[in-house]
Amino acid sequence: MVEMNSLEVTEVNQLRLEQDAFGAVEVPSNRYWGAQTQRALAVFDVGEERFPACLFHAFALQKIAAARANSRLGALDEELAKTIELAALEIREGRFDDHFPLTVWQTGSGTQTNMNVNEVIANRANEMLGRPLGGKKPVHPNDHVNCSQSSNDSFPTVMHIAVALEIRDRLLPAVRALRDELASKAEMFSDVVKIGRTHLMDAVPMTMGQAFEAFWRQVDNCLARIEDARPRLHRLSQGGTAVGSGLNAPADFDVVFCDELNSLCGLTFAPNPSKFEGMGAHDTLVEVSGTLNTLAVTLVKIANDIRFLGSGPRCGLGELIVPHDGLTSSIMPGKRNPTIGEVVVQTAFQAMGNHATITAAGASGNFELNVAKPVLIYNLLQSIRVLSDSSRMLAIRLVRGLTVDRERLAANVSNALLLATSLNPVLGYDKVAEITARALADGVTPRQAAISLGFLSGDEYDRIVDPARMTGVRSAPSSKV
Amino acid sequence: MVEMNSLEVTEVNQLRLEQDAFGAVEVPSNRYWGAQTQRALAVFDVGEERFPACLFHAFALQKIAAARANSRLGALDEELAKTIELAALEIREGRFDDHFPLTVWQTGSGTQTNMNVNEVIANRANEMLGRPLGGKKPVHPNDHVNCSQSSNDSFPTVMHIAVALEIRDRLLPAVRALRDELASKAEMFSDVVKIGRTHLMDAVPMTMGQAFEAFWRQVDNCLARIEDARPRLHRLSQGGTAVGSGLNAPADFDVVFCDELNSLCGLTFAPNPSKFEGMGAHDTLVEVSGTLNTLAVTLVKIANDIRFLGSGPRCGLGELIVPHDGLTSSIMPGKRNPTIGEVVVQTAFQAMGNHATITAAGASGNFELNVAKPVLIYNLLQSIRVLSDSSRMLAIRLVRGLTVDRERLAANVSNALLLATSLNPVLGYDKVAEITARALADGVTPRQAAISLGFLSGDEYDRIVDPARMTGVRSAPSSKV
Amino acid sequence: MVEMNSLEVTEVNQLRLEQDAFGAVEVPSNRYWGAQTQRALAVFDVGEERFPACLFHAFALQKIAAARANSRLGALDEELAKTIELAALEIREGRFDDHFPLTVWQTGSGTQTNMNVNEVIANRANEMLGRPLGGKKPVHPNDHVNCSQSSNDSFPTVMHIAVALEIRDRLLPAVRALRDELASKAEMFSDVVKIGRTHLMDAVPMTMGQAFEAFWRQVDNCLARIEDARPRLHRLSQGGTAVGSGLNAPADFDVVFCDELNSLCGLTFAPNPSKFEGMGAHDTLVEVSGTLNTLAVTLVKIANDIRFLGSGPRCGLGELIVPHDGLTSSIMPGKRNPTIGEVVVQTAFQAMGNHATITAAGASGNFELNVAKPVLIYNLLQSIRVLSDSSRMLAIRLVRGLTVDRERLAANVSNALLLATSLNPVLGYDKVAEITARALADGVTPRQAAISLGFLSGDEYDRIVDPARMTGVRSAPSSKV
Amino acid sequence: MVEMNSLEVTEVNQLRLEQDAFGAVEVPSNRYWGAQTQRALAVFDVGEERFPACLFHAFALQKIAAARANSRLGALDEELAKTIELAALEIREGRFDDHFPLTVWQTGSGTQTNMNVNEVIANRANEMLGRPLGGKKPVHPNDHVNCSQSSNDSFPTVMHIAVALEIRDRLLPAVRALRDELASKAEMFSDVVKIGRTHLMDAVPMTMGQAFEAFWRQVDNCLARIEDARPRLHRLSQGGTAVGSGLNAPADFDVVFCDELNSLCGLTFAPNPSKFEGMGAHDTLVEVSGTLNTLAVTLVKIANDIRFLGSGPRCGLGELIVPHDGLTSSIMPGKRNPTIGEVVVQTAFQAMGNHATITAAGASGNFELNVAKPVLIYNLLQSIRVLSDSSRMLAIRLVRGLTVDRERLAANVSNALLLATSLNPVLGYDKVAEITARALADGVTPRQAAISLGFLSGDEYDRIVDPARMTGVRSAPSSKV
Repeated sequence: MVEMNSLEVTEVNQLRLEQDAFGAVEVPSNRYWGAQTQRALAVFDVGEERFPACLFHAFALQKIAAARANSRLGALDEELAKTIELAALEIREGRFDDHFPLTVWQTGSGTQTNMNVNEVIANRANEMLGRPLGGKKPVHPNDHVNCSQSSNDSFPTVMHIAVALEIRDRLLPAVRALRDELASKAEMFSDVVKIGRTHLMDAVPMTMGQAFEAFWRQVDNCLARIEDARPRLHRLSQGGTAVGSGLNAPADFDVVFCDELNSLCGLTFAPNPSKFEGMGAHDTLVEVSGTLNTLAVTLVKIANDIRFLGSGPRCGLGELIVPHDGLTSSIMPGKRNPTIGEVVVQTAFQAMGNHATITAAGASGNFELNVAKPVLIYNLLQSIRVLSDSSRMLAIRLVRGLTVDRERLAANVSNALLLATSLNPVLGYDKVAEITARALADGVTPRQAAISLGFLSGDEYDRIVDPARMTGVRSAPSSKV
Repeated sequence: MVEMNSLEVTEVNQLRLEQDAFGAVEVPSNRYWGAQTQRALAVFDVGEERFPACLFHAFALQKIAAARANSRLGALDEELAKTIELAALEIREGRFDDHFPLTVWQTGSGTQTNMNVNEVIANRANEMLGRPLGGKKPVHPNDHVNCSQSSNDSFPTVMHIAVALEIRDRLLPAVRALRDELASKAEMFSDVVKIGRTHLMDAVPMTMGQAFEAFWRQVDNCLARIEDARPRLHRLSQGGTAVGSGLNAPADFDVVFCDELNSLCGLTFAPNPSKFEGMGAHDTLVEVSGTLNTLAVTLVKIANDIRFLGSGPRCGLGELIVPHDGLTSSIMPGKRNPTIGEVVVQTAFQAMGNHATITAAGASGNFELNVAKPVLIYNLLQSIRVLSDSSRMLAIRLVRGLTVDRERLAANVSNALLLATSLNPVLGYDKVAEITARALADGVTPRQAAISLGFLSGDEYDRIVDPARMTGVRSAPSSKV
Repeated sequence: MVEMNSLEVTEVNQLRLEQDAFGAVEVPSNRYWGAQTQRALAVFDVGEERFPACLFHAFALQKIAAARANSRLGALDEELAKTIELAALEIREGRFDDHFPLTVWQTGSGTQTNMNVNEVIANRANEMLGRPLGGKKPVHPNDHVNCSQSSNDSFPTVMHIAVALEIRDRLLPAVRALRDELASKAEMFSDVVKIGRTHLMDAVPMTMGQAFEAFWRQVDNCLARIEDARPRLHRLSQGGTAVGSGLNAPADFDVVFCDELNSLCGLTFAPNPSKFEGMGAHDTLVEVSGTLNTLAVTLVKIANDIRFLGSGPRCGLGELIVPHDGLTSSIMPGKRNPTIGEVVVQTAFQAMGNHATITAAGASGNFELNVAKPVLIYNLLQSIRVLSDSSRMLAIRLVRGLTVDRERLAANVSNALLLATSLNPVLGYDKVAEITARALADGVTPRQAAISLGFLSGDEYDRIVDPARMTGVRSAPSSKV
Repeated sequence: MVEMNSLEVTEVNQLRLEQDAFGAVEVPSNRYWGAQTQRALAVFDVGEERFPACLFHAFALQKIAAARANSRLGALDEELAKTIELAALEIREGRFDDHFPLTVWQTGSGTQTNMNVNEVIANRANEMLGRPLGGKKPVHPNDHVNCSQSSNDSFPTVMHIAVALEIRDRLLPAVRALRDELASKAEMFSDVVKIGRTHLMDAVPMTMGQAFEAFWRQVDNCLARIEDARPRLHRLSQGGTAVGSGLNAPADFDVVFCDELNSLCGLTFAPNPSKFEGMGAHDTLVEVSGTLNTLAVTLVKIANDIRFLGSGPRCGLGELIVPHDGLTSSIMPGKRNPTIGEVVVQTAFQAMGNHATITAAGASGNFELNVAKPVLIYNLLQSIRVLSDSSRMLAIRLVRGLTVDRERLAANVSNALLLATSLNPVLGYDKVAEITARALADGVTPRQAAISLGFLSGDEYDRIVDPARMTGVRSAPSSKV
């Protein structure tokens, strides 16, 4: 077998001819793409955004599964299928990442990227068989690599594969890591009494553990939301070919394709019962983006609470102590900023805006094809990536190292006016209102105010108003999970 | 029992005094609200948006369930609880809809609306017991109606109740009606061959039934998405009181409350394991809005396809015939416009924008309380309402009456260039490209071009290229469901 | 002249017949709308949202200006024009607000609302002339009230008129009031030294006046942004009739219309040089919404800063003291929450989401008509209304009453580590980093740390580090305006 | 002077030591960044998004202007300033693009990127002076390169510079090119009569020139909107240093800085009168994004209209003929798709979603610093880039080559029912409604229907109904510009 890197040393300025339905085109000799890719490069001169490598790797899986299915169903010669698989495996391994030069900004079906994949595989396969690049023989990019397929069914299939794999391999592990670190802090802080805050104002006591339990439950719910979308995400359009009808694909191509794909990647893909649905609309990807939007909302809440509770060090709330990351200000030497929290919030804003893009893209389909596929998948994979990475960073670099300032926490609790709320069942709402008004006006504690108003003695007050008991923690929080 | 309408004839300009912690306030004699509502009316002078009645009706259920739970747990006298329930039932029946004068634009906890409900119930309950309005005796709005509760747990509980009921009683029936009409059209149009369109351009044949099957599967998936969110939606914050700790509520108040509520409304609510989560964040409502955002995307696709396929009557696509609704242009007499589709699209845009508002609101929480509750629930209930109504209208007034123009459909199919795609497996991609290029250039059919290029005879062409068979319909679509 | 209220006492269940191109329809006798409105009521059964009254009042102006222009140009009998004007004036005065029963959810051109206006005016004009309602004689809703017009040019014209008037009469005065209150506080707080905060962390000193100067400049910029959009907003589509070509309107109708309109309302409207642009697209309304989106962003920043600076009263930042509004918690008696700030933030979220709806609506036009006009104008007028009201409320009820806690402010400043930043020019960045690290580690002031590290004496430190001078305020801030 | 590329051949795995306030760090020998950049690389492991090169080039301008201003004001030795300028010029020329390794996902102030720039310049400047990298002598990254600056004022200054330059050099030329091509088509198509379409339905005649005049006016308005924002965009925060007060910067640093900057880049920057405003908020960048959002809306309308008018080739509207770009389908050989229009729509969706991100980022500031700067500027520069490129591509590759299918256009016009609208002034609205109803029901032309209903003769009809005159074009459209 000829090694692909035999070409790598070729001079950049050498060219070869590639052919397509519209004639011949010059292509750099050391690149594996063909005529349609080269034409697309000339036509589409917009931006610099490229699909992440995971999309091409998912495409490789799709081409392998298609080749195997075609071979099993007699639509493709066994030897050709085998060579296509070998070439695609090299893409899967990342060896051709530099051979996909197109940006996101191409035809709305992703056709040029599908063509690009077909062309690279055909060229590499022919090369493996000792034939020149550009000859399309014996492996033709359309007749063989794209056999029983269209961009219209292959690209959305790859969108689902890439998203499903990124969710399994990147997002879920990261979000679970975050959940687990939060649960661990909920346990660690379970006896740390703090003042609760509603409307940003001092309210009644609780524990820091309860605050972190709320966080981990938020994150745990996010995991459930993502899981809920997976059955729909695992339905594939492959087999629909041009419009959804399956023209030119053998019967049961969809079933055999999913079977092969599942054996390749260990997931449970199944044919979409209406390929028309899966090609004309991308509701399920909008749905997945919705779950990421919710995750973004969760992350903003957690990051903001930690940032504010850790604000100071001397003129803020200062109840949490954030681990130092070695970074500082360019003008205020030694200033320590909550950089991790800021990254998390920014990635969340990115995912929220991406969700708006994805929603617009999802709503823009007409007839048998949604033609905003590239922008949709680019944004969706970006959301998954940045939320995964920032979740993991939040878990490892921020939550894991958090500690509390017990002195500050205790001072705040003892200072709080609304400890008096515990008196409601005894004195009634209106008398307690008198106590807090007096305490605020006179700058005294509610205990002092209650006594001076003659409502009860200090001993009676202390029996009723017990901050630790006010937290409602009756047993270890971990047992409540 | 004194009837409430005994007061209805009171002159509007008569006033009575109501008291709260900050003093006395004048209130119109024929209104049941009290001092805090009246103060809020003076403070908040923003906009005209009011909560829909369903929110107040859900509040009535919440107050009944709370009164029963308080009574069962010994926190509230049985007689008082009973009277509170009777008063709340009148709210539930809509008899007090005019006694909730505040707009959405109030404190972010919804406190003033909770206070309003407490005050109306207390006044009405005291009236039932033959006591004057404003006396707070024997039923006190805070000590009794709000017993074991805070706005901070009651308002989010009511948000979940209202949304769950609106989904069950309004959204799901409407969306199911739409799905069923679409399925019925998929069946009715199962043998109607049409040209498929990708990139808006003529592609290969399919059936109109396949187009409608795609629609109904889109809608069916939307139903599954909404269902998936319900377990989380059915978790309630009630019992958290001020910050989530349950201060001043009896043990197990949350469990007993849900038990009573479920017996009242037939759903399966359960306590949120972390009240802090349910009060400090509204991720689940953001999630529900995400499912509505996806439904909106679905509706836009369906409405747009029907509008374009029905465009004309003479210079458009004209493949579908839209039922006439009796409305016309103010200048072009007799012009018939796809008004229903336009309503659907507009409600979808509303829901998409509402989703942005809800996302911002959901991400804005700090510490123990999200204080964008009113704007969040206002938008969410609006989305449910307008999408429900437009789904039902789409089903009944548009989809149900759709017919096809078989003549136009057949002419389009016979005209289409890309019927030649069927020749790919026989001639290969490159030769078929020659055929379509020739047909386009010469203004002839692909059949004529194929023959003139000498690739095959007319008979051979006709054996291979059969539009009906190209649709891939091998059995009745209904059996595929 | 027959008074309109002669009909007001008619029983609701009495009906009269109205005719249109499709036949006769029963209409309540005491309502002035006609057949097309009644049909629309039956067709469109979606939601409860209605246009605000200002839209109908703007419609009245449009109909008056059109009647005058028609009369001047000989397209309409002078007497009929005069009667149409009288009837429309009653709409302008709000006397017919109950005769526009349709919701927002109608045809995307707003045709039914234009028809409704035409019908009410025709009926009322005929009544004034002693003729029965429903007779369309002598004043016909289409031939006379709608003379030289289409919904397609009238509705977008009214959209612009309503927005321009709401901006002039509601938004700009409110936002200017806010700017002025903020400027007044900037002056009042010009000598109040406080610690600045970046990344939520203690930074270097500044004055509270500088913080409020930033606020008022933000608001002042918002005013400039709104003003910038007005030239485009003042271009009207009137005269385009059905598609933009002006079919059936006399030459110069657009010019004469604007002339009459300007004399009615005192603004400077002019014909859009391409009516096709103004009817097929609503970019300028998307632009206006963009300025409101920016205003919303400004308001969130200001409201959040005030809320956080006023947080406490004992466990927060507590630097600002927020005026009390008499509202409190339902469970924590006497608790005072920053309710005004929360309203402001919520209205801002509403405007942000509305902007998303408006953007989607604006992008959805096809060919000669954007058919998302009702949803677009509904959201835009709502944004103007709620931002106007909340800006005014913020100005009057929150900013005006703000005071500072000088004791707390002074304590915070004297405590701050990064006062040491003033030493940079003397000691260099790296040595100052040592000082702050030492102060933080040892829990001492930077002054103590600097001395103990031997970098300078206490006297030297005090000469260099002067919090008041660090604020950079060299003269009264007011002189910098 | 030592050439920088002397280091380029260094082995990647060689390392040198760099120091900062927290100790020593190993850095690759052939990279010019220092300790803080290296630490940031280790801390921030999120995503792959990098700032576009234009941001670093703008940073170079900022550092040059700052060095010159410092030198003029005596804050920096003249020789050091000169060397800093030389080093920064190399960044400006793109020679160091590979020395900014950080992603967007860093501290919200952009501090690490400012530090990175400082470090690269310091190292390169020291190298030019024959000193080793990492020594910080004689040029120190903080004390000299960052002299009189903070990240907090420099980064937002660079944001404004980069956006202003990208608007001037990339966006405006591209959008003007689009406007001009559209104007040219408006002229070319000025006598091409076509059927107008409202609600997607056949309406009355117009010219294709009028359609393109609407497009160019849309685009022309977009140019005005962008221009309107420039005065605010040209106000810079430089001189505010740490919080806005100008601590450690010489008096008038802001003025001198802008003077130097303007001489470098030919724009008219001026100091923001409140640096606090420019650092704590980014309203003006949200505003700029709003103008891009409006441009996106414009582009979607134009691209969609062209796509639909060019749909077919045989079963669509087919009135426009789109130039062929040589790309085709992977399964339907020779199929030609409107790829350019699809790219345009996708970039528009990207800019709309980016606007949502930017709005969220803009609204997230607290106190003296908005800490969502990196995500904000990343999205804003991306929007400018992709809209610029797609506008230019739309102009050159699509609009320029458009032609019309006159046969199809004429057939459509002669077929249209609503030509009868011209009869309104003669027959009245109700009779014309009868004509169109009859024509539709009987499948005849409105002329035939009018005659058969006995309303007028064929001659009378032809005198009144003249499609070309109905377009309202009375003189050459170009004279209306």
